[in-house]
Amino acid sequence: MSSIALCTLKRTVRSPVKLFHVSTAKGVQPGMVDFHSVVSSNPSFRKCGFLPGLKWSFRATGIRQMTHGASGRIQNEPFRKSFYLVAGAAAVAGIVTGISHFQRAEMATKIPRVEEREGGDIAERCKSFMSPPVTDIQVLQQRKGEMSTRMEMLIMETQAEFCKALEEVDGGKFRVDRWQRKEGGGGISCVMQDGKVFEKAGVNVSVVYGNLTEEAARQMRSRGKVLKGKDGKLPFRAMGVSSVIHPKNPHIPTVHFNYRYFEIEEADGTKQWWFGGGTDLTPIYINLEDGSHFHNVLKEACDKHNPQYYPDFKKWCDRYFYIRHRGETRGIGGIFFDDLDSPSQEEVFSFVKSCAKTVVPCYLPIVRKHLNDSFSPEEKDWQQVRRGRYVEFNLVYDRGVKFGLATPGSRVESILMSLPLTARWEYMHEPAKGSKESEMLEVLRSPREWV
Amino acid sequence: MSSIALCTLKRTVRSPVKLFHVSTAKGVQPGMVDFHSVVSSNPSFRKCGFLPGLKWSFRATGIRQMTHGASGRIQNEPFRKSFYLVAGAAAVAGIVTGISHFQRAEMATKIPRVEEREGGDIAERCKSFMSPPVTDIQVLQQRKGEMSTRMEMLIMETQAEFCKALEEVDGGKFRVDRWQRKEGGGGISCVMQDGKVFEKAGVNVSVVYGNLTEEAARQMRSRGKVLKGKDGKLPFRAMGVSSVIHPKNPHIPTVHFNYRYFEIEEADGTKQWWFGGGTDLTPIYINLEDGSHFHNVLKEACDKHNPQYYPDFKKWCDRYFYIRHRGETRGIGGIFFDDLDSPSQEEVFSFVKSCAKTVVPCYLPIVRKHLNDSFSPEEKDWQQVRRGRYVEFNLVYDRGVKFGLATPGSRVESILMSLPLTARWEYMHEPAKGSKESEMLEVLRSPREWV
Repeated sequence: MSSIALCTLKRTVRSPVKLFHVSTAKGVQPGMVDFHSVVSSNPSFRKCGFLPGLKWSFRATGIRQMTHGASGRIQNEPFRKSFYLVAGAAAVAGIVTGISHFQRAEMATKIPRVEEREGGDIAERCKSFMSPPVTDIQVLQQRKGEMSTRMEMLIMETQAEFCKALEEVDGGKFRVDRWQRKEGGGGISCVMQDGKVFEKAGVNVSVVYGNLTEEAARQMRSRGKVLKGKDGKLPFRAMGVSSVIHPKNPHIPTVHFNYRYFEIEEADGTKQWWFGGGTDLTPIYINLEDGSHFHNVLKEACDKHNPQYYPDFKKWCDRYFYIRHRGETRGIGGIFFDDLDSPSQEEVFSFVKSCAKTVVPCYLPIVRKHLNDSFSPEEKDWQQVRRGRYVEFNLVYDRGVKFGLATPGSRVESILMSLPLTARWEYMHEPAKGSKESEMLEVLRSPREWV
Repeated sequence: MSSIALCTLKRTVRSPVKLFHVSTAKGVQPGMVDFHSVVSSNPSFRKCGFLPGLKWSFRATGIRQMTHGASGRIQNEPFRKSFYLVAGAAAVAGIVTGISHFQRAEMATKIPRVEEREGGDIAERCKSFMSPPVTDIQVLQQRKGEMSTRMEMLIMETQAEFCKALEEVDGGKFRVDRWQRKEGGGGISCVMQDGKVFEKAGVNVSVVYGNLTEEAARQMRSRGKVLKGKDGKLPFRAMGVSSVIHPKNPHIPTVHFNYRYFEIEEADGTKQWWFGGGTDLTPIYINLEDGSHFHNVLKEACDKHNPQYYPDFKKWCDRYFYIRHRGETRGIGGIFFDDLDSPSQEEVFSFVKSCAKTVVPCYLPIVRKHLNDSFSPEEKDWQQVRRGRYVEFNLVYDRGVKFGLATPGSRVESILMSLPLTARWEYMHEPAKGSKESEMLEVLRSPREWV
């Protein structure tokens, strides 16, 4: 069970439960999560017949809390090993930055306790999700060993861990929407809007399948995949978790991540598959410590798998999130990769899992650190101008958004939940020389190394 | 001299001049235009050596003021005839709508007095512009009879008329920026931001030339133009005026117009040419009277040239300004046309001129009518959501924006000045059934007839 620490409890869904205690710099404080409201606010959750009359059982088998360099490491099957090694990656940042800000921030950041029970009961693991998985639980159980099942479980877990971490820090609740795709599959969109800390936070899972259109097949080929369909048909299955978080305070950066898996069946029955993904940060003001923390956590995750991953995927990220018409990157980057299909499916999945597990330790310490930073109306304006650039990137360049909007039957609200609640376009906006705003622009105009 | 009525004056640019008197429902009120600030705020204007030591001379040879059905009609060369006929098109709206709101609004709207002196002195006409034309005045004088000169004069005049009408109603001043394109040509961008009435108002002129790139040539061919270049080079000249006005009050609609001319020289020396353009309205709330006024003024302008123009170009407009992923149009349309190259260059220019001259009478009466309408925070929110959709259309679909952003050397600030100052994206925003907001959506989902 993810996101649970320091307590063991057994309650029905009908009453709010005291779910965990959060250790902060000021001491241990109680946190409340109203599971009833999460469930009841989602009609699909009630309608789907998932867990009728269920008693939600949460069991925390240990305490997992950030201290400098102290993280639990459990060795198991090879692909689990790296997961556990990296799950505690936030700890590394403390070592790397060695600055007291993060000591406090990390102490306050509850790294979700993830019991990775791929060999365990699927239904049991599903209980921690924001909503039942897209694919029927019985089907998942039957196809337990298949990569599509393992990936769907991972993206559902990632969504739940991240949402719960954000709810904890904000005090608000995610709205959970289940949606179906007529052509096959569906998704679960979690959105928190106009919260205390977050202006707009969206965490989306989608699992879709069907036959690849000609257009999509062309896109694949242009990316180096040679695919032979049967009677022009290419059965595919695609899934992923993606998220964009826009906080209110201009000193808390925007974060984005996306991890996805694609498989496609050729005429002769062979399966082509690949993974893609990345996590990147978009601060409004440069903060060296934050940038270093963020990139170091990602580098640690990468280094467990391949020492070339971080430098390669860092560059790829800077290239991808580039607003060409502005001559500036969207933010300070992170990692980005696509079409990853070697050395083996098991290895790549293990890497993707490592990345997915760094989302909370990458971001939450930064959020907590700046939670109470004061800001001026001018700083808020600059944030709004940067939000405008975010919109420009997402609508003009982002492949996922473009592909999504051009695909019939896609859920537009889920695609565009990445857009901020508010944005601003000032004609000829140019920060004063030597200002903090101009310092930010300089970094966006020539990406730097953060590790 | 455009935009001048009821007074004759002669002043140097160094002092503000009392430029005109505006007849309103409440009586005659003085209006001030500080030409000194317009000129001095624009370094290029001072640097360009245009009219050194000039005394600005304004002469109004008559009074042109809207009354029901009373507009001056002067018959001259054929292409002037229709211009004058249509210049008074706003008058028609009064007849068509027959409602007192517009009687007052029209009385208050000073339709610019345009003395069309194509046979007259170019330098004299240029004095009314927001800035000297893009092309050197001497060159324009030498090429007086050429279409590119006549069109450049028209777009400069249109910019000046519209800007001055907006300044008059707002009380604010346009910032005027001249810019040059390294590859040939340049433009004049007029932007008023955070004014009293207008959140953001942009009126842009550009006159560019050079050789067509392969990419651009392909675009031409896809639109039915077969073009044979010499050594792969296709010398071209393109020019246009375009504008987007976003008012603050949600009861005043956003307006957009664009009129453009394109010519291209083929290997054998023959010139291909065509015109394009349109004017369209994006209200936040449906107002039948406004919609009817707007479309009727456009229809009148079209009908003078071809009875098929309005119905055809109205449909084209609804098709073009369609946000496919939302299943809704951007606004309530107007007219849109492209690739217009028949029956003759003279005839098409005359039509385009008619259209350009309707911009003020289409829009200003609507602005004045709603100037003092009160509005709630909820209405402002709905405006911001609609602004978000405006951004979506412009960044995802608009051919001009897409082409501009993809063209090296284009001036991004001028292309994106069409974006609103502020916009909003609410997840799953759906107005309550029967609300004014939902009524607006219904119209956007199934375009209606307004005439």
